[in-house]
Amino acid sequence: MSAVRSHVCYRVPYADTDQMGVVYYAQYLVYFERARTELLRQLGFPYRELEAKGFALPVVDAHVSYRGAARYDDELDLSGWLSWARPVRIRVDCEVACAGDVLVRGYTEHACVSLATRKPVRMPPELACIFQTALADASP
Amino acid sequence: MSAVRSHVCYRVPYADTDQMGVVYYAQYLVYFERARTELLRQLGFPYRELEAKGFALPVVDAHVSYRGAARYDDELDLSGWLSWARPVRIRVDCEVACAGDVLVRGYTEHACVSLATRKPVRMPPELACIFQTALADASP
Amino acid sequence: MSAVRSHVCYRVPYADTDQMGVVYYAQYLVYFERARTELLRQLGFPYRELEAKGFALPVVDAHVSYRGAARYDDELDLSGWLSWARPVRIRVDCEVACAGDVLVRGYTEHACVSLATRKPVRMPPELACIFQTALADASP
Amino acid sequence: MSAVRSHVCYRVPYADTDQMGVVYYAQYLVYFERARTELLRQLGFPYRELEAKGFALPVVDAHVSYRGAARYDDELDLSGWLSWARPVRIRVDCEVACAGDVLVRGYTEHACVSLATRKPVRMPPELACIFQTALADASP
Repeated sequence: MSAVRSHVCYRVPYADTDQMGVVYYAQYLVYFERARTELLRQLGFPYRELEAKGFALPVVDAHVSYRGAARYDDELDLSGWLSWARPVRIRVDCEVACAGDVLVRGYTEHACVSLATRKPVRMPPELACIFQTALADASP
Repeated sequence: MSAVRSHVCYRVPYADTDQMGVVYYAQYLVYFERARTELLRQLGFPYRELEAKGFALPVVDAHVSYRGAARYDDELDLSGWLSWARPVRIRVDCEVACAGDVLVRGYTEHACVSLATRKPVRMPPELACIFQTALADASP
Repeated sequence: MSAVRSHVCYRVPYADTDQMGVVYYAQYLVYFERARTELLRQLGFPYRELEAKGFALPVVDAHVSYRGAARYDDELDLSGWLSWARPVRIRVDCEVACAGDVLVRGYTEHACVSLATRKPVRMPPELACIFQTALADASP
Repeated sequence: MSAVRSHVCYRVPYADTDQMGVVYYAQYLVYFERARTELLRQLGFPYRELEAKGFALPVVDAHVSYRGAARYDDELDLSGWLSWARPVRIRVDCEVACAGDVLVRGYTEHACVSLATRKPVRMPPELACIFQTALADASP
């Protein structure tokens, strides 16, 4: 688990709710994306730059565990951190919390692909290095 | 107004509703897109082909008038027709109805642009011809 | 696994795509919802009726495995079936396929809750019975 | 036009983009909602409180004019202000800007309804008063 952990403050709009009066379950994957994007930015490698270099990190696996429900106008804390990194794959864990209560937990696994070929490739060395450093910093 | 009018049957998922128990207002623009795509297909020029030829029809103006509310599990009729066509611009009018009642009306205006330059261009002659024929057929 | 398996035909709108040119990863949870809703309808217990009786089946756990990518204007087959049912919990497995290729697989687990108290409750006997029959029919 | 004008800073996620590489046109209505919600909060009457008092302000009319395109990771300024207020109806105008350029303009008109009856009603006096004060402050 990386020492760096992102935090995005997010206000729930009406658009995210459903007729049960809570945030619709698919929206949390969008919240995870916000936390991931901010994590990459904090690690010094914005996703926009990764794409500019010809790489992408599409999601190959996602898991979400719902414990509580976010509601309209809630101010959420969207948080993410790196769990592990391999040459062509990483996992990011995320949490959505409100007023200190964790409502939803989950993770996404991403393959590194070349935008030109859409095939899996080793991630660029500078990114691999950033990930390894982040993970090493977290060791006791 | 074109003689050809598209009809798409659409079942409202939970995802489209909000905590008021009705379809969220922005969703109707997605419904309009479904009606438009089907209209172009019926006219013989699927939007996918238009893009393959290097053109796009981005929305430059949209208007929606809300009279009633669609609800979860409703089976809607999403309908669209061509109102007018100029060399670089068209207007498509749309209606969303449930069980014969028109719930929402509106329109979108689209500019024809080149995908290469993102600049406005005259639409391809075969498309302009299809539009003019559709409009002529509708004259009394 | 239930003998009954739902199939919903779904055309991908522009709205569902992202700038990678494929369907955005969270959308598949909406596709799963469409398959689930149709499954309940086929089993003879539409979700709308379940809510009318004072119950709901919120998602408590979701998993998605991405193998391929759906694209704009693809005609998808959204499919779902019951994997198991307990007194207060069920699991529905889903697949999203295009032209016979399975692009995405996953499942959702649902708790039965009372709409009045928002607490877990045993599901109504007629629903439990429908689920058990569906699962028994599938046995060899 | 009200003296008070809301500003919400919003980072565009991948989720909001489409395969043209820009923000999908319906998303701007969600952006308008964010600007409106913040406007009501700044005026001292959060929408959540309005609902708690038994009222709602559903959209009856919406217009959007697209001049430019927002892109992934852009930091947008979502802005809204009150244009006029009548006993049962208001209009809020909105702008979406990036780095000082206005990309999209539009407005929404809202009816005041009772949540109990879903019928139009005069808005609560304290809200009408807030609106009139806001509009009066803006006069030269």
